[in-house]
Amino acid sequence: MAEKPKKPQKPKARLPRGLEDRGPAAINATRAMVEKIREVFERYGFEPVETPAMEYTDALGKFLPDQDRPNEGVFSFQDDDEQWISLRYDLTAPLARYVAENFDTLPKPYRSYRVGYVYRNEKPGPGRFRQFMQFDADTVGSGSPAADAEMCMMAADTMEALGIPRGSYVVKVNNRKVLDGVRDAIGIADDGQWLTVMRAIDKLDRLGISGVQQLLGEGRKDESGDFTKGAGLKADHIALVVGAVDKGAQMDARLRDSKIGQEGRAELDEISKLVATSGYGADRIKIDPSVVRGLEYYTGPVYEVELLLETKDEKGRPVRFGSVGGGGRYDGLVSRFRGEPVPATGFSIGVSRLQAALTMLGKLDTRPELGPVVVTVFDRDRVADYQKFVAQLRSANIRAELYLGNPKNMGNQLKYADRRNSPCVIIQGSDEKARGEVQIKDLIEGAKAAAAIASNQEWRETRPAQFSCREDEIVAKVREVLARHAVRWG
Amino acid sequence: MAEKPKKPQKPKARLPRGLEDRGPAAINATRAMVEKIREVFERYGFEPVETPAMEYTDALGKFLPDQDRPNEGVFSFQDDDEQWISLRYDLTAPLARYVAENFDTLPKPYRSYRVGYVYRNEKPGPGRFRQFMQFDADTVGSGSPAADAEMCMMAADTMEALGIPRGSYVVKVNNRKVLDGVRDAIGIADDGQWLTVMRAIDKLDRLGISGVQQLLGEGRKDESGDFTKGAGLKADHIALVVGAVDKGAQMDARLRDSKIGQEGRAELDEISKLVATSGYGADRIKIDPSVVRGLEYYTGPVYEVELLLETKDEKGRPVRFGSVGGGGRYDGLVSRFRGEPVPATGFSIGVSRLQAALTMLGKLDTRPELGPVVVTVFDRDRVADYQKFVAQLRSANIRAELYLGNPKNMGNQLKYADRRNSPCVIIQGSDEKARGEVQIKDLIEGAKAAAAIASNQEWRETRPAQFSCREDEIVAKVREVLARHAVRWG
Repeated sequence: MAEKPKKPQKPKARLPRGLEDRGPAAINATRAMVEKIREVFERYGFEPVETPAMEYTDALGKFLPDQDRPNEGVFSFQDDDEQWISLRYDLTAPLARYVAENFDTLPKPYRSYRVGYVYRNEKPGPGRFRQFMQFDADTVGSGSPAADAEMCMMAADTMEALGIPRGSYVVKVNNRKVLDGVRDAIGIADDGQWLTVMRAIDKLDRLGISGVQQLLGEGRKDESGDFTKGAGLKADHIALVVGAVDKGAQMDARLRDSKIGQEGRAELDEISKLVATSGYGADRIKIDPSVVRGLEYYTGPVYEVELLLETKDEKGRPVRFGSVGGGGRYDGLVSRFRGEPVPATGFSIGVSRLQAALTMLGKLDTRPELGPVVVTVFDRDRVADYQKFVAQLRSANIRAELYLGNPKNMGNQLKYADRRNSPCVIIQGSDEKARGEVQIKDLIEGAKAAAAIASNQEWRETRPAQFSCREDEIVAKVREVLARHAVRWG
Repeated sequence: MAEKPKKPQKPKARLPRGLEDRGPAAINATRAMVEKIREVFERYGFEPVETPAMEYTDALGKFLPDQDRPNEGVFSFQDDDEQWISLRYDLTAPLARYVAENFDTLPKPYRSYRVGYVYRNEKPGPGRFRQFMQFDADTVGSGSPAADAEMCMMAADTMEALGIPRGSYVVKVNNRKVLDGVRDAIGIADDGQWLTVMRAIDKLDRLGISGVQQLLGEGRKDESGDFTKGAGLKADHIALVVGAVDKGAQMDARLRDSKIGQEGRAELDEISKLVATSGYGADRIKIDPSVVRGLEYYTGPVYEVELLLETKDEKGRPVRFGSVGGGGRYDGLVSRFRGEPVPATGFSIGVSRLQAALTMLGKLDTRPELGPVVVTVFDRDRVADYQKFVAQLRSANIRAELYLGNPKNMGNQLKYADRRNSPCVIIQGSDEKARGEVQIKDLIEGAKAAAAIASNQEWRETRPAQFSCREDEIVAKVREVLARHAVRWG
């Protein structure tokens, strides 16, 4: 293992950049989202598989994230035997390793889904996280466009299961083979130049036709004055590319002749037909010739799920959320281990990104849940009695706890119960004890009453929302309070 | 980032040692376990929090895993700014960082639970994993023995919620302060020597009194001939230690006088009283003076959950599962960030370890679930029709899929459906198409019938468990098949 740094006397409690802690509301929202996605994926016949967070670097190796962003690297370390291990940066590369390793025993086609965190060694930036969650589905061992069509339908169903109404999202489909047809027609031999062309196309939504034309030619200066070098195409080649990716344009004769382009278009036609027959119209799934998808390993159909909903940025300007997931066919990923062709297609949802979008749009319930019933400590010698009340409530499947802080001040105990969002507290002083009774204070009712009460004196005299009951009635009476506030209980 | 290795031409698909892939049965079992544990912890008033998988090494720093096992290290790498980052090796050190960082805004006492994977850079060995799941609960900001008592009761409730019957587990409680009283009485100044004493005590269950006596003295030779050096105590000190940890022994007068020992025993008395009042007898929670817990940071009560169930090892000998979780009071972990005392107590369940135990004991349902309905492809030109059947089934909330492999051989399609554990397949040839019908083949009924059929000929003639229905009856008829086999459907 690597050498450790010297320890400071008193370390600072802080997280590395790009990482975050998550509280109850975010955790519960993720859990609800994951369950809904899982339900859709299982309905489509996919079964779960889980790979570890780390793999041999060479097994993940070739398919590092988009070379457009070289800093989007992986976290790596050397094992005792000097071999390099990396944290997974997506859920596709580990699946390829898993399928290759278990090829002979898996049913084929092999349909699986996976959910988990992935890790990227990103440069700092707003909204750039180094740990985030993805939810993927893949079909390995089928070259049929029906497999791709299914991914698009599943993506649409998933959006609706998550509460995004029809019309507020769209699944856009294209085919890398159509783009390869463009490459053929122009005759671009250099991979780097071709990548620059694809990146330019990828920016059509954001920059419009004229921006893309500049990036296909000499280059483009953005508003901040930064210059991006272009692909250096000639004017008629630029026109050819633009004609191929602009929805309204007529197809150029040079494209019509490309064999790979024809193949790509035939696959897209097949996908269109399949989704239409199953009742998915262009409001949900549509062919869009400008979709590229950043990753380089796609070999056929590519698809992207876009949220059409708008929100405002920090300056109050409307912003579209854009892509929250996507995928495509990657026939090379498994075969690189096996030296034989293994067709595969897959789809990935950015759970963390989608959750951020849904939260901003108010589509997720982020209200805190009601907390536990708090049994207060009036007399510190009788903690065992109070603990017994707690145990009774818990046995009845009611969330409950004993106040475990310093009990000397009852006000602090009530403040704590408020902080925990407790529905009610139980109080037993020596008078109540003598009578075999407890006081139950309904905090929700009490907060309402308090708002209507003018003075402290009136408060002390009326003691709203507080009542006594016998010790053996605690469970029944607390249930009444919970029922009044419609709290889930056993 | 660190330098990358050269990529081989064709990488080998394999995982680093100590890591594993997990299939549907294991994943579903974990999910069920996690939900049950979560339910108990929430009933006790704990709320979820999640920290990332990596932290600054110095923030995790001081509390590395047990120094007894130096190879049980952490995975670490250097960030771009040269600072060291490590993967978490437990869920306690990150909690301490989290609480210290958010100290002023958290309710106190702060009760939280966390579930997630932790990573240890272990030497290879059977059953030693480098990624495994823990489920923790902690109460920070309470020094009360009631907080420790609650952890023990919660541990007991959790075991029962997981289906482990009363009597098949026990929560054993001790107090480090009692052990510190022993140290006082003997007068051991050297931390290393004291650690050796504690390790010896920790082995009481496995080696018995005489084994511990040897380890407290000169040392012990095990069956394989390996010699473990002992703590080098004198005979009367050995007697003192053994007297303190042996349940039946009378307390030595020298122990009675230690102030810290008295404090520890008073806390244990308080815990005993609290759990007894709440109805937890010694069959569930008991004081056991030999419990040490490996980690060094404990400062007060320590507790350990032991499975008393037995299984057989590979040689057929009975083996107790032993510890599946535990914890204790660690008043120093948060305060090391803040320079002021912050009492805390916590409990950790080894989910992966417990799952292995429950699986071996047959307490987990590891049968594969029924798979999706498979719509077969009889005529490859009519994939869109078949896809439509699939879409209808899915809309009715029935798990269904189109066969996406090479459709030329119907036998392969049926074999695939068997592999997926499908309840039934849908078949539509051209004759059925002409009549607007489909064939439904009940695979479960069919398998039963097949077992009773003598010849291939009889099979072909009777076609058991196969029937026709109209296209618009597919959903209703499939529901009948599913209901017959009591499959969950929407």
